[in-house]
Amino acid sequence: MIIVMEPNATEENIQTMDRLLQEQGYQTILNRGDVLTVIAAIGDKNTVVPKSLSAMPGVKEIVPIQDPYKRASRITHPEDTVIEFQNGVKLGGNSPLCVMAGPCSVEEDIESLLIVARGVKEAGATFLRGGAFKPRTSPYDFQGLGEEGLKRLAQAREETGLLVVTEVLDSQDVDLVARYADMLQIGARNMQNYKLLNAVGQQNKPVLLKRGLSATIKEFLLAAEYIMVQGNPNVALCERGIRSFDTGFTRNVLDLAAVPVIQKRCHLPVVVDPSHGTGHRYLVAPMAKAATVCGANGLMIEVHPDPDRAWSDGQQTLTIPAFQALMTELDALYKFRVTSDQL
Amino acid sequence: MIIVMEPNATEENIQTMDRLLQEQGYQTILNRGDVLTVIAAIGDKNTVVPKSLSAMPGVKEIVPIQDPYKRASRITHPEDTVIEFQNGVKLGGNSPLCVMAGPCSVEEDIESLLIVARGVKEAGATFLRGGAFKPRTSPYDFQGLGEEGLKRLAQAREETGLLVVTEVLDSQDVDLVARYADMLQIGARNMQNYKLLNAVGQQNKPVLLKRGLSATIKEFLLAAEYIMVQGNPNVALCERGIRSFDTGFTRNVLDLAAVPVIQKRCHLPVVVDPSHGTGHRYLVAPMAKAATVCGANGLMIEVHPDPDRAWSDGQQTLTIPAFQALMTELDALYKFRVTSDQL
Amino acid sequence: MIIVMEPNATEENIQTMDRLLQEQGYQTILNRGDVLTVIAAIGDKNTVVPKSLSAMPGVKEIVPIQDPYKRASRITHPEDTVIEFQNGVKLGGNSPLCVMAGPCSVEEDIESLLIVARGVKEAGATFLRGGAFKPRTSPYDFQGLGEEGLKRLAQAREETGLLVVTEVLDSQDVDLVARYADMLQIGARNMQNYKLLNAVGQQNKPVLLKRGLSATIKEFLLAAEYIMVQGNPNVALCERGIRSFDTGFTRNVLDLAAVPVIQKRCHLPVVVDPSHGTGHRYLVAPMAKAATVCGANGLMIEVHPDPDRAWSDGQQTLTIPAFQALMTELDALYKFRVTSDQL
Amino acid sequence: MIIVMEPNATEENIQTMDRLLQEQGYQTILNRGDVLTVIAAIGDKNTVVPKSLSAMPGVKEIVPIQDPYKRASRITHPEDTVIEFQNGVKLGGNSPLCVMAGPCSVEEDIESLLIVARGVKEAGATFLRGGAFKPRTSPYDFQGLGEEGLKRLAQAREETGLLVVTEVLDSQDVDLVARYADMLQIGARNMQNYKLLNAVGQQNKPVLLKRGLSATIKEFLLAAEYIMVQGNPNVALCERGIRSFDTGFTRNVLDLAAVPVIQKRCHLPVVVDPSHGTGHRYLVAPMAKAATVCGANGLMIEVHPDPDRAWSDGQQTLTIPAFQALMTELDALYKFRVTSDQL
Repeated sequence: MIIVMEPNATEENIQTMDRLLQEQGYQTILNRGDVLTVIAAIGDKNTVVPKSLSAMPGVKEIVPIQDPYKRASRITHPEDTVIEFQNGVKLGGNSPLCVMAGPCSVEEDIESLLIVARGVKEAGATFLRGGAFKPRTSPYDFQGLGEEGLKRLAQAREETGLLVVTEVLDSQDVDLVARYADMLQIGARNMQNYKLLNAVGQQNKPVLLKRGLSATIKEFLLAAEYIMVQGNPNVALCERGIRSFDTGFTRNVLDLAAVPVIQKRCHLPVVVDPSHGTGHRYLVAPMAKAATVCGANGLMIEVHPDPDRAWSDGQQTLTIPAFQALMTELDALYKFRVTSDQL
Repeated sequence: MIIVMEPNATEENIQTMDRLLQEQGYQTILNRGDVLTVIAAIGDKNTVVPKSLSAMPGVKEIVPIQDPYKRASRITHPEDTVIEFQNGVKLGGNSPLCVMAGPCSVEEDIESLLIVARGVKEAGATFLRGGAFKPRTSPYDFQGLGEEGLKRLAQAREETGLLVVTEVLDSQDVDLVARYADMLQIGARNMQNYKLLNAVGQQNKPVLLKRGLSATIKEFLLAAEYIMVQGNPNVALCERGIRSFDTGFTRNVLDLAAVPVIQKRCHLPVVVDPSHGTGHRYLVAPMAKAATVCGANGLMIEVHPDPDRAWSDGQQTLTIPAFQALMTELDALYKFRVTSDQL
Repeated sequence: MIIVMEPNATEENIQTMDRLLQEQGYQTILNRGDVLTVIAAIGDKNTVVPKSLSAMPGVKEIVPIQDPYKRASRITHPEDTVIEFQNGVKLGGNSPLCVMAGPCSVEEDIESLLIVARGVKEAGATFLRGGAFKPRTSPYDFQGLGEEGLKRLAQAREETGLLVVTEVLDSQDVDLVARYADMLQIGARNMQNYKLLNAVGQQNKPVLLKRGLSATIKEFLLAAEYIMVQGNPNVALCERGIRSFDTGFTRNVLDLAAVPVIQKRCHLPVVVDPSHGTGHRYLVAPMAKAATVCGANGLMIEVHPDPDRAWSDGQQTLTIPAFQALMTELDALYKFRVTSDQL
Repeated sequence: MIIVMEPNATEENIQTMDRLLQEQGYQTILNRGDVLTVIAAIGDKNTVVPKSLSAMPGVKEIVPIQDPYKRASRITHPEDTVIEFQNGVKLGGNSPLCVMAGPCSVEEDIESLLIVARGVKEAGATFLRGGAFKPRTSPYDFQGLGEEGLKRLAQAREETGLLVVTEVLDSQDVDLVARYADMLQIGARNMQNYKLLNAVGQQNKPVLLKRGLSATIKEFLLAAEYIMVQGNPNVALCERGIRSFDTGFTRNVLDLAAVPVIQKRCHLPVVVDPSHGTGHRYLVAPMAKAATVCGANGLMIEVHPDPDRAWSDGQQTLTIPAFQALMTELDALYKFRVTSDQL
């Protein structure tokens, strides 16, 4: 890292800082300019700036010089990661657009789930999504069917051949969910639940990591790094809207530029969720199309046979025919997409 | 508007509110429920909720029931507005994608401006953009060439046939800028400079209104309403990125969902500026493509013959060949765009 | 709740909505106005608006009419909650200002912890704070000493008589942490980790719940409700700064108005953390003083014998003498504070 | 400034950058490390980083090394600025707390204005505030009485001896407003209206500059710099709440930490507006007290004889007796405030 000392830093300030850095294992180079002195500290193995350094007398600014994420960084892994699932479906790189579709929550009526599963499969989706464990802002909202919901998802997989992606909320549930799911989803509220990240990093199912509501992209990549450090390289990153000052017409602001921003720096696949990212049904198709052309490797879309009676998120859920029409359009658009080598 | 009274509001609270509303010219209907009382106040001509009402004793909540923007609203004007310029170029509705391109600032070297103008014209742009009056965060930054810059833009128009769009910063400069420009741009920092909005509303050149850095879409539409109320119906709305908590990798967050959100509620053309919206050259093409498919009627893009030596914003500026390559892609994508009747 | 129908809603839209509401167990009252129709739906036991309702044809807006938090609401519990600890210390209402102080992380050197504990005790603190399990943005940062850290905290308690407050990161660790701590802290990143909220709600130690980085106050109160619904009434709410667009000079924006906003609506004690809330040492005293006069029941402050060598957060940590000087000032200010009955 | 080159920057990249810097008038020092090369560019007179530099091949990061504001900076002007008004009232440094109070808008009824003026004068205010030109989000809202309003303010000054502070919205109105007012207010929406900043910088009445809704503190100080560069050193900075994601219970988030943050870096007086900063009457006193102890030099508070009938902002306006009670409390608190030399 680079330590820029204040113009009025004393010789003692400079010497103290230099000594402290050496104590912490850095090799230092002093560059004394006519205006100010800059200390380059070499050897920052873990890329972390000890915050206390910047409170030392005479310090103007400290600039880290390496990305704090290593395994997720494209510098250390230039080619795109492609996650392969057991049935041959692939996510990432130049694989076909991978669409994950289904109801917000798995509901009691299994027939309804099967109808969705068949409908989205027919339209070209490769994953069935659906929540068995639901994180809800209010304790009085429906919290999901739990294991019962997982069983229904597995039944739909058997019948349709779709893969299953579903959310796990707690480190204690990882084994349970991993028995049923093909891909474990970490929700936005849990993006910095580090025990949970560690737990999904220690099992071998791929992970779909959703961006926290107010997570910076750097924090998002570091959350992926938590999973990867534990040994699981199969992480996909899902942009699903961030919190902004304007909640008048959309639930969140879908940050589509995050797709190329991440793909420039990180080799992992990127998925976009236009349902949560906007919160409104009429915005799902426009944003799904936009996400596809700007380079998303996958999409996650809420579909329900009768959205107005869905147990949650009906407002942002497509009907099956609307989903099928959208898939046809996405198919035509996919060849126009930005690929990571163009960034 | 609907006034919802608190469950514990007294009869006196209710009567006082009812009387006050009638004094202010509303017709009222009381709906006394078993839990609470709701007063419907009919006749809110100007759609404004007097804020003081909500501080009256016993009031729980006040809900306006009409859009506060009237002229900008699609309810009162269902068909898309198409702005026609004197040379036949159109912006809005089903007109071709209208691309405005050019340097951030008009610089001293006229030859450089002509090179850009010819380059973007050849690639299919219909407008030359370029700042003669520059709003800059620091008083020590280059503030633009002023009228000298306007003359250069006019010269480039004569040579190329491109239309000119350029920013006006102050009500005193409206006449001056309108003498040279075909379209007057109101910048993000001035979106709520109401004297300036009034001034551009009172002249007859079309206006490109940029969204304020932290303006809600409702405020954005109300700013357009200011211009329209003065008699100028030719306003285009430009999404150019909003301020967020994450400035690590992008200058702003480009809110592409604003395109269909606005088009559902408002008949005016929508333009997207992926240069300011992202702040980075490598993000311009991905976001321009995404904006096109989600329904933008126009794009505003910074182009310079040698961006690394541009006087401002070089970091987010395309070279001429990069712009030409992008235009070819946009041309192929335009037919896949979402149109306002699909929302 | 109140359902406001669109002016152009058809009779069929109105009838469908009315029927659907009745199917869901509501009693309905139709109020047909000359401009629009309003439906009042009575009987919303769980205060949740089914989101799908607002996507029904003809619906303009839906307004819930009761607070979604019940146990946390001052309406159902008008008097201030005062949490009593076994040694007689109290938090909330008119109890003395309750100050929680100590290092960011518990470090290896026990002597250093004891020095802080004695120093803050002498200055009038009643709680020792310190992290044994540390949530860190990067997996390469120091993650805390774990149970070893808890033991050191317990040792400091024995020696000084201070109570111990420390963070629990995961539902699996609740029993462990509860064995050592007098108060369990839920960190900002876990404010919506519902399994963890449930787990701390099912044990009987008081809980200090920190506000999420971008949590609204409503979400914050609903997170408290999660804990209370499980049977634990002893929850204190900690404002610790929210994420904003400006990270130039502070880590977060400390939302001090949240103190009276919460106290008007909720009977639980409110604690303010000016260390995390600002991220800078020189801002801790000004913000601690401001928090005290606007009504905080407690403060959480980072103190270390040698902040420049602290393992984490040294930049925002006070020295022991600085903390002692601050406590003297707070003591003089406390009598000027705003109390909940003044709101 | 410091240019940090990428680890994989080529020798040509380094040489090109070095040459470009020298062309732009910098003296350069190359510091070639074993990991990367750092170029120090000396002589950045105007403290601006040409943005295009960071888009040059091989550049990792560019760090400016001087504050971009010079006249506003405490480095160049260590002692507090104290603004003196003709009647001996002072704002800044160790002068008494300077309170500006009055209605949001000047209304037709002059008697009502005189009642407020007498009431706030008696309570210890030294300034009468009131809008004659009102910036309103909607063109259909009351826009102020204009010069008629200014005359009423002047009349109230004559009768009470209070100073007058009122907003100017446009560069064309500066002379007019300066004829009547003792201090010119620049509103939040105009903080980056640079023509207006220049215009108030060229006249000699002191200026109260309000922070923009989403302005960073750096941008705020640069806006003050605009005024000062034109020759007017008498600028006070007013924190009045910033835009955040949570609008459930407050209009804005009042960023009180901005008070000490600014006072550490800038010598100008700081004023806090708890009325606009919160938007609710019951929050004005708590936040006014908090602002006072954390070091504000002044307060701006909305007061009206009958807030529920005020033409604007009644919801956040105090009655005269409530204001008088608050002033008594502030008087007791002022001696406990943080002063700039403690930061």
